[in-house]
Amino acid sequence: MKTQVAIIGAGPSGLLLGQLLAKQGIDNIILERVTGDYVLGRIRAGVLEQGMVDLLREAGVSERMDKEGEVHTGVELTFNNKRVRIALDELTGGDTVTVYGQTEVTRDLMEARAKAGLTTVYETSDVQLHDVKSDSPYVTFEKDGEHVRLECDFIAGCDGFHGVSRKTIPDEVKTEFERVYPFGWLGLLSDTKPAHDELIYCKTDRGFALASMRSQTRSRYYLQVPLTDKIEDWSDEAFWNELKKRLPDDVAENMETGPSIEKSIAPLRSFVCEPMQYGNLFLVGDAAHIVPPTGAKGLNLAASDVATLYKILTRVYKENDKDCINQYSEICLRRVWNGERFSWWMTNMMHDFGGVSVSGADAITFDRFMSSELNFYTDHEEGRKIVAMQYVGLPYEDLK
Amino acid sequence: MKTQVAIIGAGPSGLLLGQLLAKQGIDNIILERVTGDYVLGRIRAGVLEQGMVDLLREAGVSERMDKEGEVHTGVELTFNNKRVRIALDELTGGDTVTVYGQTEVTRDLMEARAKAGLTTVYETSDVQLHDVKSDSPYVTFEKDGEHVRLECDFIAGCDGFHGVSRKTIPDEVKTEFERVYPFGWLGLLSDTKPAHDELIYCKTDRGFALASMRSQTRSRYYLQVPLTDKIEDWSDEAFWNELKKRLPDDVAENMETGPSIEKSIAPLRSFVCEPMQYGNLFLVGDAAHIVPPTGAKGLNLAASDVATLYKILTRVYKENDKDCINQYSEICLRRVWNGERFSWWMTNMMHDFGGVSVSGADAITFDRFMSSELNFYTDHEEGRKIVAMQYVGLPYEDLK
Repeated sequence: MKTQVAIIGAGPSGLLLGQLLAKQGIDNIILERVTGDYVLGRIRAGVLEQGMVDLLREAGVSERMDKEGEVHTGVELTFNNKRVRIALDELTGGDTVTVYGQTEVTRDLMEARAKAGLTTVYETSDVQLHDVKSDSPYVTFEKDGEHVRLECDFIAGCDGFHGVSRKTIPDEVKTEFERVYPFGWLGLLSDTKPAHDELIYCKTDRGFALASMRSQTRSRYYLQVPLTDKIEDWSDEAFWNELKKRLPDDVAENMETGPSIEKSIAPLRSFVCEPMQYGNLFLVGDAAHIVPPTGAKGLNLAASDVATLYKILTRVYKENDKDCINQYSEICLRRVWNGERFSWWMTNMMHDFGGVSVSGADAITFDRFMSSELNFYTDHEEGRKIVAMQYVGLPYEDLK
Repeated sequence: MKTQVAIIGAGPSGLLLGQLLAKQGIDNIILERVTGDYVLGRIRAGVLEQGMVDLLREAGVSERMDKEGEVHTGVELTFNNKRVRIALDELTGGDTVTVYGQTEVTRDLMEARAKAGLTTVYETSDVQLHDVKSDSPYVTFEKDGEHVRLECDFIAGCDGFHGVSRKTIPDEVKTEFERVYPFGWLGLLSDTKPAHDELIYCKTDRGFALASMRSQTRSRYYLQVPLTDKIEDWSDEAFWNELKKRLPDDVAENMETGPSIEKSIAPLRSFVCEPMQYGNLFLVGDAAHIVPPTGAKGLNLAASDVATLYKILTRVYKENDKDCINQYSEICLRRVWNGERFSWWMTNMMHDFGGVSVSGADAITFDRFMSSELNFYTDHEEGRKIVAMQYVGLPYEDLK
C-alpha cells in the first residue's frame, strides 16, 4: 500500500486531518486499532472553541453541527455562595463556544470520509512506524492475519496517549512533562434536560462539580471524587444526591434526573511531550499532550494541532516547501502550553485538594492562594477577560 | 502610664498609625525595643503604592516625599531576551507608584512625632501584653531597669514577625500559613546612579535579578542566590559582575558601580496569621503577614492595615461605635491575601527554582507553566492590566 500521509488513529484528530488533506487533494490512509463503533462509544468532550468550529466548517463537515450545536455566550463559576457568569462574547469582543459532543463530531467526520471514498483500515494490530527520519518512512501492521506495509511521505500520530507514535520517538530526543492530581472526575451521561442552559463549574466544600451537557435532552455531569473510589461505589442515586449538594440550590431543586447512559471515573493528568515532531512523524492531540478536563481544552488543542499540520502539509505539497515542517512543534507547543497552564490553573482554583500539598506551600496556604485567585479573577472585569479569552481559546498561529 | 492606644513597635506602621491617630486627637504611646537609630538603619522597601502615598499625605508627613520621591509610571519585566514595559498609568487609568525609601518614610514620621510632642519609649525590654480580651488591657515592660505598666483601651501590634504581639494570641484561636522558598535575595545598596530610570525585574538562566533604586543617586540591586550562600562569599566585585550578567546587555554596559553601603542576604517567605485581631489587640503589618519582596508589597500591605485600623479607631472614639472593631481582620485579610497571592505569583514567574519541585508537578513542568504564564501575561494587554492593577495596589476597602 502507498499513500502520501499515513494517519495513525481514527479519532476526531485523525479523521479531521484526513478530511482537510483530502480537500486539498492530498492522499491519506487512516489506520485504527479498534472498530468504528468502538471509537464512537468513547464519551469525551463537548465544548468546541470557535477555532475548531471554523476548522470543521473548512473541512466541510459542519452541516449538522451548525444545525444542532448550541452556541454558548457564557459560562458560570460558583463558589462560596457566589455565582459569577463569565460573559464570553462581551468580554472577548464576540467570541463564543459551541456545545456539540465529540461523539457527534466523530460521527460526522466518519460519514464524510465514507462518502468521499477515503480509506480507513479498522482493527489493525501490531502497528509499527519505520524509518520516520528518512524520506521514505513506512508503517507495518497486521490486518485479518495478514502483514501489510504502508509506504508514505509523512506519518501523523493521532493515536492518543497510549499509542505507538509517541513511543516511536527515542527517549533521548524527547522530554516528557507530567503532573497527576490527587483526585478524579466521576462522569455521568443521561438523557435528561440539562440543569441549566449554560455550563456551571462549582467549587464547594464537598469538592468540585460540573453541570455540562451535550444537547437540550442530554446532560453530562461530573463530580470530583477520591482516586480510591470505584465506579461500583456510585449508584445513579448516590450520584444525583451528591450532585444536588454541590450545585447552587435553585439549580439543584429543578434538576431533572434519570438513569445513566454512561458512568465512569477518569484520573486528571497534565502531560506534554516535547518535541511534537521527529523527522517525518508528527504527534497530534493526546499523543503529545493531555490536560485535565477543567476548561474543556483537550479536543480543542488537538484541533489546533490539526490546523497547524494541515497548513504545513498543504504548503509542502502545493509549494514544494519541505522546510516548513520544522515549524510544527514550536507553533503547536506554544498554544499547547497555554492550554496546559489554563487547565492546570482552572483545576487548581476549582477543586478541593483535601490537605494534599501541591505547591511547596502547605496545602491550606495553597487553598487560600487559590481562593484569593478565584475572587480576584471574578471580582474584576480585567480578570473575567483573562478567563474568557482563554476559555473561548487563543487564536491559531500562522506559519512563518 | 495611661493612653488610649498602646502601639508596640516604632517602625513605619507604628509611627504612621500614631501620627494618624494623634491628628484625630486619639492619644497613643509607642513602645520600641531598640533605638531610633537602629530602626532607621534597617534597609527595607522603597516602592510606595498610591494608597500609601495618600495615607502619608493624610498624616501630614508627605512634604519631603512629595519633593524627593520619584513617581514611576512603569516597570519592566525581562526574560528570554524580551523586555516588556508595564505602563502602570496607561493600564490602570492613571495610577502610579512612588519610589521613596522606607528609611526616609520612617525618618519623616519620627520627626513629625517628635515635633508633635508624642511619646515614644525606645529601648524597652520584656514587653508583655495583658488582658487583651478585656475592656482594660495593659502592657508591662522594663525601661532603664524599672518595671512599667501602661494602661490602654487598645493595643496595636506593629512589632514585626518576631514581635510579642502575635505570640500573645493563643495558638488555639489562630492559624498560621507559611511557605518558604528555595532561595534568597542578596541585596546591595550603593551611592551610584541607578542603571535605569525604572525598576527592571529580570528572569534569567542564572536566576532572578532586580535593578531598583532609592533616588537618582542611590541604587538598590538584588540577586537571587542559593540559601546556602554566605554574605562573605560575595565581594562587591563579585556582586557587580554577576548582576551585569543578569541585566539586559545595554543596561549592564552603562551601569555605574561603586562600593556597597549595605549588603545582606534575606530568605523569601510567605506568611499569614489568621485572624489579625484578638479582643482589643490588632496585628498590623509584618506582625501578621510577610510576603516575598517580588512585587514590593510588604510595606504597602502594612500601610493598608494601618488605614483600616485608623478608620476603625476613629469611629470608635468619634462615634462611640465599638462593634466596628470586629471588621478589622476580615477587611485586612482580603487585601493581604491578594498581596500574598500576587507576591507568590511574581516570585514563581520570575525566579529559577533550580529543579526543586514546588507545585506537585515535577520542577521542569512547573518551569514550563511559569514560562507560559509570563508570556501570556506580557503578550496580551488584558494580562498586562492584571499585572499593573496589582502592582500599583488594589483600592483600600471602606468599613461597613
